[in-house]
Amino acid sequence: MCSSYDVIVIGGGISGLSAAKLLFESGINVLVLEARDRVGGRTQTVRNKEVKYVDLGGSYVGPTQNHLLRMAKDLDLETYKVNVNGFVIQNTKGKSYKFQGAFPPAYNPLVYLDYNNFMRTMDQWAEQIPEDAPWKAPHALEWDKLSMMQFINKVCWTTSGRRFATLFVNFIVATETHQVSALWFLWYVKLCGGSTRVFATDNGGQERKFVGGSGQISERIMEQLQGRVKLQSPVVRIDQSGHNVIVESLNHEIYEAEYIISAIPPLLTTKIHFKPELPGIRNQLIQRLPVGSVIKCIVYYKEAFWRKMGFCGCMIMEDEDAPVGFTFDDSKPDGSVPAIVGFVFSRKATFMTNLTTEERKRRICEYYAKMMGTEEALHPVHYEEKDWCKEQYSGGCYTAYFPPGIMTQYGSVIRKPVGKIFFAGTETATTWSGYMEGAVQAGERAAREIMFQMGLITEHEIWKSEPESLDVPARPITTTFLERNLPSAQGLVNFIGYSTFFGIAVAFGIFAYKKGNAIRL
Amino acid sequence: MCSSYDVIVIGGGISGLSAAKLLFESGINVLVLEARDRVGGRTQTVRNKEVKYVDLGGSYVGPTQNHLLRMAKDLDLETYKVNVNGFVIQNTKGKSYKFQGAFPPAYNPLVYLDYNNFMRTMDQWAEQIPEDAPWKAPHALEWDKLSMMQFINKVCWTTSGRRFATLFVNFIVATETHQVSALWFLWYVKLCGGSTRVFATDNGGQERKFVGGSGQISERIMEQLQGRVKLQSPVVRIDQSGHNVIVESLNHEIYEAEYIISAIPPLLTTKIHFKPELPGIRNQLIQRLPVGSVIKCIVYYKEAFWRKMGFCGCMIMEDEDAPVGFTFDDSKPDGSVPAIVGFVFSRKATFMTNLTTEERKRRICEYYAKMMGTEEALHPVHYEEKDWCKEQYSGGCYTAYFPPGIMTQYGSVIRKPVGKIFFAGTETATTWSGYMEGAVQAGERAAREIMFQMGLITEHEIWKSEPESLDVPARPITTTFLERNLPSAQGLVNFIGYSTFFGIAVAFGIFAYKKGNAIRL
Repeated sequence: MCSSYDVIVIGGGISGLSAAKLLFESGINVLVLEARDRVGGRTQTVRNKEVKYVDLGGSYVGPTQNHLLRMAKDLDLETYKVNVNGFVIQNTKGKSYKFQGAFPPAYNPLVYLDYNNFMRTMDQWAEQIPEDAPWKAPHALEWDKLSMMQFINKVCWTTSGRRFATLFVNFIVATETHQVSALWFLWYVKLCGGSTRVFATDNGGQERKFVGGSGQISERIMEQLQGRVKLQSPVVRIDQSGHNVIVESLNHEIYEAEYIISAIPPLLTTKIHFKPELPGIRNQLIQRLPVGSVIKCIVYYKEAFWRKMGFCGCMIMEDEDAPVGFTFDDSKPDGSVPAIVGFVFSRKATFMTNLTTEERKRRICEYYAKMMGTEEALHPVHYEEKDWCKEQYSGGCYTAYFPPGIMTQYGSVIRKPVGKIFFAGTETATTWSGYMEGAVQAGERAAREIMFQMGLITEHEIWKSEPESLDVPARPITTTFLERNLPSAQGLVNFIGYSTFFGIAVAFGIFAYKKGNAIRL
Repeated sequence: MCSSYDVIVIGGGISGLSAAKLLFESGINVLVLEARDRVGGRTQTVRNKEVKYVDLGGSYVGPTQNHLLRMAKDLDLETYKVNVNGFVIQNTKGKSYKFQGAFPPAYNPLVYLDYNNFMRTMDQWAEQIPEDAPWKAPHALEWDKLSMMQFINKVCWTTSGRRFATLFVNFIVATETHQVSALWFLWYVKLCGGSTRVFATDNGGQERKFVGGSGQISERIMEQLQGRVKLQSPVVRIDQSGHNVIVESLNHEIYEAEYIISAIPPLLTTKIHFKPELPGIRNQLIQRLPVGSVIKCIVYYKEAFWRKMGFCGCMIMEDEDAPVGFTFDDSKPDGSVPAIVGFVFSRKATFMTNLTTEERKRRICEYYAKMMGTEEALHPVHYEEKDWCKEQYSGGCYTAYFPPGIMTQYGSVIRKPVGKIFFAGTETATTWSGYMEGAVQAGERAAREIMFQMGLITEHEIWKSEPESLDVPARPITTTFLERNLPSAQGLVNFIGYSTFFGIAVAFGIFAYKKGNAIRL
């Protein structure tokens, strides 16, 4: 005989565990089946004596991520701020610049207008996209046919603007601009509170990390679940042809449940053999949502030499020869274990995944040395990395993306239950989808969908708004009059013509200089 | 103890069975594991008293498909020609036209130039794309970033030209123009012998069908393999960590082999749990190759009324309200069992998959009645259909497609063995990929890769050219001087200006009229 449960949750990442926690606390007999020998999914905290602890997967938390902040507080976790003291270094067109603040400045006033117009246009279009149904946006069909590359080519006018916009997309979703739908990307950014919130460290998505690592979220929920998580149990079969649902794991264990929560990336549900088969649209959808490609690389140094040099450790690398696209200071909150974490995105991950660990480390350190202008970067004391491209039980990182055309043609079934199967996972969230925050929201919502089915709550209680965290309050994202009203680069040139233009360029140059404190390295 | 084989082939479609046949005939101990309770994969012939037999999946065969023609002859199968006697009906912009020949004619000379330029430009670009390595084309990176929608918008100048080009893509690969890479699509068309060969019935990809159905190919190979095909054995696990490869099926049977051939669509290999995990690039690639969406619908009538009306049964439906995109006469070679087969592509399949069978049948018949202008179409005597969107063991039909950016970033590993696993399946072919022809070529090539590993053949013998079929010879695809040298629509207008243009429009009109025999219905 097989073991019987009210609910089986497939996937012991943050989403599945958040669902299980809520169900468990509501007195429901729940079991979590996790494919790997660890919980956490796309988050993973590794401990060793060299690094104390390090997040090899999802790590950052910031204001407005209130589901996650509440969950973490409930689990007695604390956050700390990522170091932003000092200059950010940007490399573009073979040169390095340093600046302070969230966004690279621009000498060239046209470039400044272009940056400004790119961010502004994304947010303006996004206003029309419903969080819970992006396929219903008034221009959904049209925008879904566009890739972000086409959006960028439409909106940005300068080479620098396009390079920044490209890195913006690479950084936010770990994929290429020509591979993702504009509708999807604009929706994604909107769910994070807009283009500034998603990109920023201070007051944005990368503001904080968890003391002790984000892996503790899943580990602590697992503890609370008192043995209701089975590791090394990849699900291979779901049979809904009888009264209860039958679930089988790769190791031949058979379980029975009234309801199922699928809390894995949509594409990974292809790993499951379904009886009866999934509905046509869902079977098509799950083939069309690949997960991004990223390698996370952490280089450890004897001391945080970059801080002494006046840098914060954040580097933005646009050049094609840069192995890494983005870095942050990854030292511990007390400044110990000095480290820089770098993200290798998409095309660069495809290149770097073929190298040896030593070779990746060498190339990264050499580039850091070049960026910061110091040989100290060449002498790391330790190196950690995680190539998410290889992970068959994540698909990749950070999240599933929608290529052009998929959202409007297949996307509307993303949360639609299939018989007794309900769908969690950060991809099904309506806030910070793709993030830990979305994972918590989606997991708890899926749990409540089942509690509604069980008659424990009303339908109105399924979707709940989350009160703002008191510990990590959000400051509003403000835009200046100029940011709202400046013309686009192209608009300006069209309007005043080239001759007049160079006359007033100087004025804008001064403005941009003040705004960004741009200083050539 | 588990059973032990030299080679295990995963997938009992035409590709896997072609591989197994060659290995078996070479004295190699081979086993085929097939997920379903039938062989054939994306081909399936159903028999019943109403229809005698009907191909619900891949069906057509034409000149230059020499691997398939040789295989079929070896299996004592015969082909017959699809009916092309009579007018084709085209519907566009709410009106129906009839014409003879492969391609719709055009009243408007600009439209004619646009059609001509679209087909010509595809073939011209394709000249630069290597069959065996499209990612190495000189402009691969650039063309791979373009969707076919972008290509069409670039090349076609008239609304009619764009509509035709869109249907061309829908028909050839059962997906949307904005969802596929231009590099991939142009490569795909090249592998079929170019834009005319792939689209045409006479002397093209849809020239013939197999008497008795294409399902016999797989059925007869299975017979020859004398019990070496195990049905209802979906593979869930491949373990390459020991000396031999361990393969496990969903029903807990465990097999051992020296080599594996994966003969399933790339994305369906996500269904398998791999130990060790796949290399990063392959793990990324297999998430990015969804299979097209198509529903095949066959409507049976008491008599072939369309033939009496002077129609051949082929209809090309461009209008958005048409449930079906393309039809052919599907009567038996002797004219018995009169039927019209219709293909519902991509966005229309996504819509139609949600309807009931009765509703699909009704909508289709009503449209046929409108197209042919007769109520006879409203009274079918029988209906067969197959919604490939739902098939978890095919993913869809006809074939996997490459969205923008995937071919150049991940495509180069498509045939690269992973340890002892070799890759067959029509997606890995270098001729008529996506067709039964490609399935045979890829299967036999993968078999020979293993025979080379075993020391049975030399490396040079892995790739073999196939002699031309004597029974189904190919006539060359010729282009006229005008087709080669006429300007594009835009080019013409730019060159002569609008005023001169209307003067010579009449001349082109006469030319187009003669070429296509266009007659307004």
